[in-house]
Amino acid sequence: MTQARSGSRATRGSSSARSTEFARIARLSQVLGAGAARSFVEVDVGDDAAVLGRLRGRLVWTIDAAVDMVHFRRDLLGWQDVGWRSLHAAASDLAAMGASPVAALSALALPRALLDRELLSLVKGQREAADALGCPVIGGNLSRARVLSITTTVLGQAPRPVLRSGARIGDEVWLVGDVGLAAAGLSWLMKKRRGGGRAVEHCVSAWRRPVALIDGGLGLVGRAHAAIDVSDGLAADAGHIAESSGVRLVIEESCLGAVLHEDLSRAARLLGVDPLVFALTGGEDYALLAVGPRRRRPCAAVRIGRVERGLGVVVEKADGKPRNVSSGFDHFP
Amino acid sequence: MTQARSGSRATRGSSSARSTEFARIARLSQVLGAGAARSFVEVDVGDDAAVLGRLRGRLVWTIDAAVDMVHFRRDLLGWQDVGWRSLHAAASDLAAMGASPVAALSALALPRALLDRELLSLVKGQREAADALGCPVIGGNLSRARVLSITTTVLGQAPRPVLRSGARIGDEVWLVGDVGLAAAGLSWLMKKRRGGGRAVEHCVSAWRRPVALIDGGLGLVGRAHAAIDVSDGLAADAGHIAESSGVRLVIEESCLGAVLHEDLSRAARLLGVDPLVFALTGGEDYALLAVGPRRRRPCAAVRIGRVERGLGVVVEKADGKPRNVSSGFDHFP
Repeated sequence: MTQARSGSRATRGSSSARSTEFARIARLSQVLGAGAARSFVEVDVGDDAAVLGRLRGRLVWTIDAAVDMVHFRRDLLGWQDVGWRSLHAAASDLAAMGASPVAALSALALPRALLDRELLSLVKGQREAADALGCPVIGGNLSRARVLSITTTVLGQAPRPVLRSGARIGDEVWLVGDVGLAAAGLSWLMKKRRGGGRAVEHCVSAWRRPVALIDGGLGLVGRAHAAIDVSDGLAADAGHIAESSGVRLVIEESCLGAVLHEDLSRAARLLGVDPLVFALTGGEDYALLAVGPRRRRPCAAVRIGRVERGLGVVVEKADGKPRNVSSGFDHFP
Repeated sequence: MTQARSGSRATRGSSSARSTEFARIARLSQVLGAGAARSFVEVDVGDDAAVLGRLRGRLVWTIDAAVDMVHFRRDLLGWQDVGWRSLHAAASDLAAMGASPVAALSALALPRALLDRELLSLVKGQREAADALGCPVIGGNLSRARVLSITTTVLGQAPRPVLRSGARIGDEVWLVGDVGLAAAGLSWLMKKRRGGGRAVEHCVSAWRRPVALIDGGLGLVGRAHAAIDVSDGLAADAGHIAESSGVRLVIEESCLGAVLHEDLSRAARLLGVDPLVFALTGGEDYALLAVGPRRRRPCAAVRIGRVERGLGVVVEKADGKPRNVSSGFDHFP
């Protein structure tokens, strides 16, 4: 591992367009390291590995990759957005467990052509996200690659983690946060549409700058029987809870439709798409989907369905009939 | 994150050459998950994140990427070797801190063309390495990419981590494990040479199946003032200790030459290369370089130099004059 480290070579690459590995590491560590110190971080950038002390109780740990042209499209995002998204997408897994993120490591695989200022911008986005999440990036790895990718690992604490496997028959299905906006925003960008106003801007921003719902996840602890973050699509991710728990999740369209953000409805109308399609199949808002008993539903959650005996997911139309839904994103379809 | 998870879809893809993401995850979790349970692993494959309990004291944490055609060459390695190397390379950072690995997560970025049996072979190599290291792979992430890469994060425990920054003037420079063999083995493979006998086989095997020196690292705790694993090259990595500690490391060629493995000398002779060149610039054996006081030198370490006032690294020839050494591997030269 090449941990980001500081040192006297920091200045060497600062004026050139593409500096050496060690100059880059030194520069990046200035952006990520400074002010990122927490009492439990004993060693951050500058050694073979990071050292953490004084972490008690259960640890929750995830890794997540963001690959150019797979997870993001550079032509539709700024470099800072790329950095921001990478950290929030990884932290969202911890939100889904009811965990608080503690720290992150970031492995950057960079094409030769990437300029120093582009890299710096990306890392600034990570730093911005780290500050917003209270989750410093305390180390990482830098390597060359033909295609840009960012792989992020996040460690967090969760005294009582919420798993996917605890759903019970009779539970309600809950949604925390908005779904569908990011998918509508991406659709708008891909169609190269112009204008659209504030509603579309909101959707585009939901895709470019998603936010891991850490507080929303903490609010599920002791209340939800199971939870997941919506990364593959609402219907697909509901399927993961159903499979892990051995139950059927019924998403009630009438309930889901009633809680969709009005900006999604506006943007979907402009795009000529049913907003429920974005809501059911779009994943990159990083909302939280949970199930639990009615009396324990947190204020931040809305009811969008129910848990029944059976298997899989049914999306129930207002007339009680099932809707066919595509199964969400599959990396190897 | 798509944590590896088990489930009823496991069988779906088993007969086809390239199965879906979820079928693959299910299959991989069978290889990685089974028997990997440790008492402190509360949730491994099958949820948004892994859950660890009962870890006390300081944690040491690293991330490391292995990218096709950068860190390895598929034409020179088997798939199981690729998997094996990815875990040992990451664990080696922990060895350098005097830490014991606890568990790992693995993010696999896979080209569409990769066949199920190739992927399975890769993961079997990871499992083999996990068993050898006592460090189960308890989760990960699967995504599509144009170029194959494996990014591994390893978490370990170290009551008293050995950093890079503690070298003191008057310390000896120590080497634990062999250097140069992997570089000689790779050189042999790249030149497409045949034969070579047992010595060359040893070198090739050192490159294909490196071993993180966990016990060697633990043996440095309380003895070494600073340590690093040799991944960029002995001279380059010595430079990292020198820079972090604000001292000069002098590598004495007469000492280093005397401790080189005889198989390296034989292979180097066949290749027509000075074995010291492989030893000083080849990094992928994952030996440990440390510094400490003479009276505390562990049995497993040999003296190869000294720490002086000054900066940087000097490789001192037998006649006392300095040797010019290329600076090791730079990802962005």
